[in-house]
Order: sequence, then C-alpha cells, then structure tokens
Amino acid sequence: MSALQNRQWRLIARPAGPVKRSDFEWVTSDVPSLGPGQVLVRVLYVSLDPAMRGWMADRRSYIPPVALGDVMRAVGVGRVVESNDASLSAGDHVTGLTGLQDYAVTAAKDLVRIDPRLAPLPRFLGALGGSGMTAYFGLLDVGQAKAGETVLVSAAAGSVGSLVGQIARVHGCRAVGIAGGPEKCAYVRDELGFDAVIDYKHGDVGAGIKEHCPKGIDVYFDNVGGEILDLALARLARKARVVICGAISQYDVRDDMAGPKNYLSLLVNRARMEGFVIFDYAARYAEAARAIAGWLAEGRLKTSEQVEEGLENFPEVFLKLFRGENVGKLVLTVEPR
Amino acid sequence: MSALQNRQWRLIARPAGPVKRSDFEWVTSDVPSLGPGQVLVRVLYVSLDPAMRGWMADRRSYIPPVALGDVMRAVGVGRVVESNDASLSAGDHVTGLTGLQDYAVTAAKDLVRIDPRLAPLPRFLGALGGSGMTAYFGLLDVGQAKAGETVLVSAAAGSVGSLVGQIARVHGCRAVGIAGGPEKCAYVRDELGFDAVIDYKHGDVGAGIKEHCPKGIDVYFDNVGGEILDLALARLARKARVVICGAISQYDVRDDMAGPKNYLSLLVNRARMEGFVIFDYAARYAEAARAIAGWLAEGRLKTSEQVEEGLENFPEVFLKLFRGENVGKLVLTVEPR
Repeated sequence: MSALQNRQWRLIARPAGPVKRSDFEWVTSDVPSLGPGQVLVRVLYVSLDPAMRGWMADRRSYIPPVALGDVMRAVGVGRVVESNDASLSAGDHVTGLTGLQDYAVTAAKDLVRIDPRLAPLPRFLGALGGSGMTAYFGLLDVGQAKAGETVLVSAAAGSVGSLVGQIARVHGCRAVGIAGGPEKCAYVRDELGFDAVIDYKHGDVGAGIKEHCPKGIDVYFDNVGGEILDLALARLARKARVVICGAISQYDVRDDMAGPKNYLSLLVNRARMEGFVIFDYAARYAEAARAIAGWLAEGRLKTSEQVEEGLENFPEVFLKLFRGENVGKLVLTVEPR
Repeated sequence: MSALQNRQWRLIARPAGPVKRSDFEWVTSDVPSLGPGQVLVRVLYVSLDPAMRGWMADRRSYIPPVALGDVMRAVGVGRVVESNDASLSAGDHVTGLTGLQDYAVTAAKDLVRIDPRLAPLPRFLGALGGSGMTAYFGLLDVGQAKAGETVLVSAAAGSVGSLVGQIARVHGCRAVGIAGGPEKCAYVRDELGFDAVIDYKHGDVGAGIKEHCPKGIDVYFDNVGGEILDLALARLARKARVVICGAISQYDVRDDMAGPKNYLSLLVNRARMEGFVIFDYAARYAEAARAIAGWLAEGRLKTSEQVEEGLENFPEVFLKLFRGENVGKLVLTVEPR
C-alpha cells in the first residue's frame, strides 16, 4: 500500500476573520502503514460544518483545536480498504473523523459502520449523521419542545435548521423558520412544510417574529447568534428555552463578538438559554437515527444534501456556509471522478 | 380615620440613567376610607431593592411598571390599624407591597401576617423576606447547587448575595464571593464564612476567579451583569448553571446595555443560563422561611440589615444600592421617630 498517495488539506494558520485559502496547505504525502487496531479508509465524502471554524481557533473549547500542521479535522464517510481490526473488513462503509484527505488511517473503534443500502452516502453526514443528531437532541432534549408550543429556528434552510423545524412539526409544534432570501424561504415553507418563514434579508425580522409567534417563542433554536438572537430573546414566552447550537454570524468576529443585549429577557420570562455538544449524546445516536430514518421513510421529514465536487476546492466551498450559499447539508466529494 | 395624613413618594418621571430626586414627587394626602376586604396598615419599614429601578421603566417585564403619578411600589412591613377582613385584626403585623408611604390601604389577601416575636421587623424584608426567598430558590431550585460544587456569587455583601454564599456552604458547596472594597470583603470572608472573596474594586476579577475556582464555576449566581458576568462565563465548569437574579451594573444604561460576549461558553461547557422571578415561588415561601429561620437559629447563617432613617430620605438612600454603599439588606424606616 506504500505507493498510495494522499492529498490533504493541512491547517497552517489560525484565521483572523474569514477563512482564507492561505490558512491551509494542500499537500500530497504517502499513506502511512497500519498499526494494530487501525484501518485504512478511502474517504468518499466530507461534511463541511460551521463548527470547523471553531476548531481552527486556538481557544479552550469542547475539543482541542486542530494543531498547526495537522490535517484539517472533518467528519467523513468512506470505504474500508484494509483493516487491522476484527470489527471492520475491507469493503465496509464507515463514518467518523476522517479529516480532509483522500485516505484516513484511524483506530477502528473511532469509526461507525454504516449500511449504504439504507440511504445515499452523503445522508450519513446530514440527516442520519451529525446534523440529524444535533437537531434531534437539541430540540427534544435541550429544548424540551412539547406539542402545542411554538418553535423558532434560525438558518432554517440549513442542514440542522431544516430538520429542527420538521421534527418540531412531527411533535405537534408550530414551526417558524428564519432564512435568507426568497428561494430559501420558499423551500422552508413549501417544501419542508414549516408553518411560517421569515426572510432576514428582505424583511423586518422582529416584526416577522411578532406576527408568526403571536403567543411568544417557546423554543428558540439558535444557529446564528448576533442580532437575530437578540430579536428572538425579545419575544420569548414564559419558561422559554433558548438552545444555543451555534453562532455563525459571530465566528469570524469572535474577538469582538456581540453578546445578547436582551439576555435579561431570561429573567423577565423565567427562561433559560442552554448550550450543548452533540458528542455527549453518542450513546443515544442509534435512537435518534432510528427515529429520523423512520420519519424519512414515512415522508414526514424531507432532507437534502448540496454535494459539491472536489476535495481540492475545499476553501472556496467552505466559505459558502458563511455566506449562506447552501441549502441543506453541504458535502464535498473526495474521490476524483 | 379621615384625619390621617399620608406622606407618599409618587413616581412622576421615568428615569433615564441614574434615579434622581426629581423623578419623584413628595406629597401628603388623605388616607382613603376602607372598602370591603381591605385593611389599613401603618407602614413601619420599607425594603429598598434594585428591582425597584426596573419597575420605574416603561418596559414589558414580569409585572407592569409603576404608572406615572402612582405611589412608588415597594415591599414593606407594618402594623394593621383597621381591618375590614376577618383574616386580620388591628395590631397584627404584616408584610406585602405597601408602597413608599406612611399608610397603605390594601386587600387583606395581598398581605402576609408575620410574628414580630420571631425576629426584628426589618429581617422580614431581608433573610426572612424577599432576599431570603430569592437566595434560597435561586440557588437551590434554579441553580441546583449540590454538595462539592463551587458556587460563585456577585454582590456577595448584599442582601441576597450574602445569603447565597452561606446557604451554599450549608449545602456543602465551596462559596466564593465578589464584593467591592476591603471592608465588604472582610465581612464576606470573616463574618459570613465564605471560602474566598474577590475584591472587584482592587483586583483582577478574572485572575481571582481562576485562583479561587480552580475546577471552574458550577453555579454562578449573578446580581450584577456586565463585565463580571463575562468573566464568570469564561470560567464555567462543564454543565454549569448561571442564575440570572439581577444586573445592577446595567440598570442605568439599559437602552445601551452590554450583553454577555462570552455566552458561547454555554455551548462549550454544555451550561445553562436561567432567569427567575421570586413571585413564582409564593406557594413555597413557608418552606424557605422555615429553613432559613432554622439555620439562623443554629448560627449557620448570619444576616444583617442596614436600617436608614426616614421615608423622606428615600431618593438619596436608594442610590446607595447602585453605588455599592450598603452591606446586607437596605431598609428605610417610615414612622417618624
């Protein structure tokens, strides 16, 4: 196997502001040989997530930052090429932290086997992967959404947000989304079946929340932070739950980020704001995956992946997340066509 | 009773910035006659609370603002002079929303009878009143403080904060306070028995938190908001609870207030920030009062009231809260000596 060449994106600088091509190095190296318990995975798709922006910063977080010089961390799906562990065999499909590279050498215990007959492979990075887990546990466990309540979600056309609103409706909630532009709004309302959607690019978000959440917001699932978080805080219902999933509007300005000025609404409304990290729910992933797969099969959930071509295009494609240029799960193919 | 003259502080302007004497009118009026179910109360002491600043603003909150021209709302203790309700008799002592005036005419059902043999009357406004209820339910119900955890509290020499740290210690927690100046800090550490105290006027609060909360903060009980809230957020332990009780540093700048920039620490640490309003716990006040009275009797809690003289001095005395010039519960006598 020593002849295998491995194209990799390595992190070489910590971005200040938006991520740039020059924060990474595009290199080709030899694939190392396997140690005991390890497997060699041909990476097929990688997930592009806002959280990756956080992993690039040298800051105390829920996992250590990517070290300078290391392959950029990413969740991927791939096919086992060679295995030194009894739990996996060549030909198996797996998901895990493969990184942005053609081939990953990883401990078998850090990979999860997936069944490619159940869904297209990119879906294991979206509704059946991290996005689905995040929406499910964030809404139901952290957010404690209950039938009859109003759930507001930002980035509603995104991978997580689109699932949050639909799972809310499955649970008998009123789902209101916030998305950018008429196309995304039409997708959220007409394709995904949200009860209402607010276009943050062409409307008054505060007025939209007031109109579409007339009894106040019971659960606000926040993916964006910034001004929209403040507008949502201003309309909380009593005992509301604000689920902090992300803050994509703030990642590039983190050192001078805006805190939620309206946080005292938590006091007035006896409300809570709570963060979570999906890794904590690993023991219950199977429960969520079963539920989501069932709803997909019944047609009660719709999901989509935006598959972009070519690992070599990573920096440019990644920026689409921050410009709001994706609908659904943003995935990059790795294997050259 | 028509000859009784009633001195009153009425709210006549909504303060922008610090409260001024001219926001109030000092008037003398006749005491109205009693309707059915009402009692006439000679007010003896009134409680001066940061929350009163909020009640002056024309803003959606947990209770309506005081209307312009109305007697300023305040919690007081007094003695029943005349009663039109079977539940109370002349000579009974009571507590409730008496307002800033000599005499209150109030529905008997809105008053709670107290036993003046159990404690000095001002204590029914402090440890056995709103301050005690706030500390007890805020720390134990909202904050879910558990033995072995580290509890940090701001305004630790104040009426609520001083009780929070001591109740934390009763429950086997490590109690760390933040207070302003060497006298208050000595009081908190040496008199109240906190494990450690940080002087925000003469020290680096962030470094103090790091030193005295080496495993992070499990419960932060916030009375002040602003920069200190941000410094506490930066040192949360995993699964921490931030209890939002107040934000005295921000009340005068509310329209341009600072939100907590470090709120994404809630995500990293899977933590929550939650507000509460003590009125919601009315059905359980007796439970808290019994517990606090017991700890006081056992010498496990110490409490103090700073009793200032003269209803006529209200505006000047009230400002002491915002300048940090009080230790323990700030109370004003009403009856002229």
